[in-house]
Amino acid sequence: MTPNPFSPDTKRPKTTEGVFSAAEVGLANRNSGLLLETLTRDITPTGAHYLLNHFDVPLIDEAEHRLSFSGAFDAPYSLTMDEIRALPTETLPVTLECAGNGRAGVSPRAYSMPWMYEAVGTSEWTGTPLAPLIARAKPQNDVQDFAFTGADFGFDKGQPHAFGRSLTPDELAALDVMLIWGMNGQPLLPQHGAPLRLIVPGWYGMASVKWLTDISALTTRYDGFQQVQTYRFRKDENDPGRPVTTIRVKSLMAPPGVPDWISRERWLEPGRVTLRGRAWSGGGTPIARVEVETPEGWQEATLDAPVGRYAWTGWHLDWQATPGRHVLACRATDAEGRTQPIEPPFDMAGFANNAVQKTVVHVAQPDAIQKDS
Amino acid sequence: MTPNPFSPDTKRPKTTEGVFSAAEVGLANRNSGLLLETLTRDITPTGAHYLLNHFDVPLIDEAEHRLSFSGAFDAPYSLTMDEIRALPTETLPVTLECAGNGRAGVSPRAYSMPWMYEAVGTSEWTGTPLAPLIARAKPQNDVQDFAFTGADFGFDKGQPHAFGRSLTPDELAALDVMLIWGMNGQPLLPQHGAPLRLIVPGWYGMASVKWLTDISALTTRYDGFQQVQTYRFRKDENDPGRPVTTIRVKSLMAPPGVPDWISRERWLEPGRVTLRGRAWSGGGTPIARVEVETPEGWQEATLDAPVGRYAWTGWHLDWQATPGRHVLACRATDAEGRTQPIEPPFDMAGFANNAVQKTVVHVAQPDAIQKDS
Repeated sequence: MTPNPFSPDTKRPKTTEGVFSAAEVGLANRNSGLLLETLTRDITPTGAHYLLNHFDVPLIDEAEHRLSFSGAFDAPYSLTMDEIRALPTETLPVTLECAGNGRAGVSPRAYSMPWMYEAVGTSEWTGTPLAPLIARAKPQNDVQDFAFTGADFGFDKGQPHAFGRSLTPDELAALDVMLIWGMNGQPLLPQHGAPLRLIVPGWYGMASVKWLTDISALTTRYDGFQQVQTYRFRKDENDPGRPVTTIRVKSLMAPPGVPDWISRERWLEPGRVTLRGRAWSGGGTPIARVEVETPEGWQEATLDAPVGRYAWTGWHLDWQATPGRHVLACRATDAEGRTQPIEPPFDMAGFANNAVQKTVVHVAQPDAIQKDS
Repeated sequence: MTPNPFSPDTKRPKTTEGVFSAAEVGLANRNSGLLLETLTRDITPTGAHYLLNHFDVPLIDEAEHRLSFSGAFDAPYSLTMDEIRALPTETLPVTLECAGNGRAGVSPRAYSMPWMYEAVGTSEWTGTPLAPLIARAKPQNDVQDFAFTGADFGFDKGQPHAFGRSLTPDELAALDVMLIWGMNGQPLLPQHGAPLRLIVPGWYGMASVKWLTDISALTTRYDGFQQVQTYRFRKDENDPGRPVTTIRVKSLMAPPGVPDWISRERWLEPGRVTLRGRAWSGGGTPIARVEVETPEGWQEATLDAPVGRYAWTGWHLDWQATPGRHVLACRATDAEGRTQPIEPPFDMAGFANNAVQKTVVHVAQPDAIQKDS
């Protein structure tokens, strides 16, 4: 796996600050974020869920698609899509978040997709549990990793590879991993991994491999690029790092009032406004509380019932908005007592920044925000 | 319509160069571009169509939604969504492009959504022709404009307004304007204007008002913000400008080979590669030719049948790729002889930049781009 000398990436800056480069903007134009106003809905509208794809979307003919179980299995096999859809079917709401969400708030900033708050979403995913299918292939006793390979292929840091990730047998036993072919009651869309993807509930999105073609049992540890060379928390260049796994506790507010088109700062009238949003944590851990900061200080929001074990929880709080410019914030704490930091935690790659969201609102008399006649 | 003194926009820069601001990146994260690899398909996959929304997406209960015909009509009326869906129904493939597509390539660059090439897409739109519905309301003889108002509301340059646009009676008679409630065989998605929007085929996207609530007949010219204060071609601050209307001739190439994740530069093996893409023009004008530039010079591509009168035309050309770094380009000419410029045309707001797309490809021996083992 020799780095390619032609790759522009071998010369790319590791981190950057302040203003953004054309390459970062190109990624932002291509990848798409949640529309924050849809946080009022339990399920993110189809097409408004965040999307982060490393390479090109493979446009796959599902009639030709096969999922193979290969490597250190005693009973390797493969399945067509028709065979997969005939398996026991479940539908599960799952909140997915990109490991890079919040990267643009970390300083210095890693040179990558410059997410702010919007790389999250919740869909109803339809598919079948993966564990019984792996058991059916009879993994050999000395298997150390199951490698999941997608059909998407390209270069990162000069290294060509298909997107791939792995889970150990222990991880697989502990997680409710699903093979997915449906999303919000419709066939999976190409850009979300059609015809077949993984969903690893409770983990950041990189684990939920799209366009899944092969599950391989390995008697050594998997060393794919996306497993060992990225998606690791590192403090500096010499830090071997720790793998990024479960989602950190986080919350977002659906921005109240109406926006300014460019700045997205908000405008609302004085008086009672119900602030609403969502909170979630990883690994199936429930949300214990959400606090909201207004000019009157931090107050505890009311929690709705969770949308599902692996899906976000709605929250709301009535606020008496008073004239002026204010910065609103929200902070979630999960059932294991983990809470969001006020300032972004540093990570070399800007992974898992779960610092509190800040929303700028301008509260003004109605005549300043009247409808255009 | 007094500019609001609190608005951050009153102080925003008019134009900028080189690096990008956080506000521009915020817009790029929120709005989403076409995935260029889907240019191989006649119809853009749902959710991969470009999206540009000025304000928040209104989440509308369609059971409560009404379209009203108001103002200088002799027989004003309103319709429920059930009544609208019972009207004569047509499905039409239409290519939509944002007027700001290509803005990031114009220098100096307007401070707004920094589109590069990706603000375009083609969907199958289902709805009913608008003209008979306006006729049924009996416009008075002195009507000068029909104003179309959406449910989306916010601020631009300190001025609060609902998104609105207008067409004159002559424009309405000349254009095949549709009232739309379906997209690609499914109900219209919230972010694309559900439950009801306009499609103005052949014009840039700003004319296709989403979340349509009211059509008003005016005996004066419409002076809404989005009609008179923006979407005008202007050379400088003192230029009163000309309105942005029909789409300019343009073409794009589906990037060949595989991408580098960050730079999106492409990698492919030497040998024959079929270059493919799309070309389109405005006002229903067909595409006459597409030329493709390779290291061997400009060559004429083969055109497919157009997808529809108002939809793009596929093209392809076989190229013998030779090792090295190359810049590929494509250039369309329409049936009225208009062709794409090589360099971006200047406009204050960066509207309608139809300069040729450039795609950087690295052609290397297979061992440099082998699949990661």
